Order: sequence, then C-alpha cells, then structure tokens
Amino acid sequence: MRGRLKVAKCLYVCSHANTHEMLGDILSKEPNTVFIGRNPPMNYVLAVITCFSREETNEVNLKARGMAISTAVDVAEITRRRFMKNLKVERVNLGTEEMPREEGGTRSVSTIEITLSKSQ
Amino acid sequence: MRGRLKVAKCLYVCSHANTHEMLGDILSKEPNTVFIGRNPPMNYVLAVITCFSREETNEVNLKARGMAISTAVDVAEITRRRFMKNLKVERVNLGTEEMPREEGGTRSVSTIEITLSKSQ
Repeated sequence: MRGRLKVAKCLYVCSHANTHEMLGDILSKEPNTVFIGRNPPMNYVLAVITCFSREETNEVNLKARGMAISTAVDVAEITRRRFMKNLKVERVNLGTEEMPREEGGTRSVSTIEITLSKSQ
Repeated sequence: MRGRLKVAKCLYVCSHANTHEMLGDILSKEPNTVFIGRNPPMNYVLAVITCFSREETNEVNLKARGMAISTAVDVAEITRRRFMKNLKVERVNLGTEEMPREEGGTRSVSTIEITLSKSQ
C-alpha cells in the first residue's frame, strides 16, 4: 500500500513540474527538471519517464549535489537501459555550489546536471 | 609522518602511470588515468596534478564507479577551482558495468569517466 502511494505521488509531482509540489527530495521548481535526493533511484526513474510521457517534452534534466550525484548517474543509466532505449545523454555539466554551514560560513558542494534527450 | 608518506606514495604512483603500481584504490593500469576509490578526494587531486606536471600531458581521465562517482566529481572540481585554473572538463561519459556478485550472477554498477584538459 505504501509503495503504491509513493508511486502515485511521484507521478503527480512530475506531471505538475511547473508547480511547487514536493515529494521527499524531488522538488521540481523548474519545468522538466528532476531533483535527485536521498530516495531510492526508482522513484526518480519514474519521475523522468513521466516527464517524457508528455508529448512536447524532448529533454529532461537531472540535478543533484554531493552524495546524490551517484544516484543521478544511476537514474540516467537505469532509465536509458531498462525503460527508454531511445534516450541519450545529451550533456553533462559539473559545478560547485556554496552552501551555508549551520555554524556560519559556507562550504563547497559539487553538483551535476545531466540532460537526457529523446533521439529522433 | 603518516600524511607525508601518503603524499610521497601518491606522487610515485602517478609518475609511473604505465606500471601496475597500487595505492589503495588508485590503480593506474592506463596512462594518464586516475581511478577514484574510497580514499579522501585530496589524494586523487594530488595524483591528477602530478599527471599534468609531465610536459607531454594535456589530458587526464578520472574513472569511478558506484558511490565513488561523487568523489570523482569532487576531485575534478577541487583540482580545477583551487589548483589548476587553466583546466576544463573536456568530456563526461556515463556508463554501466556488470560486476560479479559473490553469491553468483552479476549486478549493474554505474560508471563515470571525466576527461580534464589543459586549455591552451
């Protein structure tokens, strides 16, 4: 039952990607963007598939930082190899963000942005 | 003392990148390639800087799989932002490898290969 609820929520978040809906760490403020956090990779795979299911969508971005970077690569690879074999990795951008520390000051965190696209 | 020894070993490994020397998880069977494992990012940053210090080297590859993917991105970003500001990320390739399980069969593991190059 819990599993079903998760899937339903996940689909909901993605089909309303322009709104500020939230499911755990999947917070999609930008259209066609899936934010990767600490949930299991399959939650995000479902979100990506749902984004692509809209007719006008040809590209979906996966964004992650810190330890979630590995999960982002898992999500891209699982989606591409198991579910949507017509997808390719269009671009990968690496970066660094300054995050505020609780005790003051900032720390640098690495980021990744993976753009998946439907090959025509 | 222990810290110094680590640095010395790290430099050694990288300056002999064609040989089968090993330092923890930095196993460099291929030239100008740094294999990222579970050591702290700074160990690998040093290895990358040492590889680039050879005159003929214009590109260095970082390879990682599984959870070490996040560390590989850290290494690329730390090297580029703090130590060698003339470096750029030339290519990023994502992939999947089949790894044997102890109990038989295989499991899929995501991989990343980041190519850093000196901008002329």
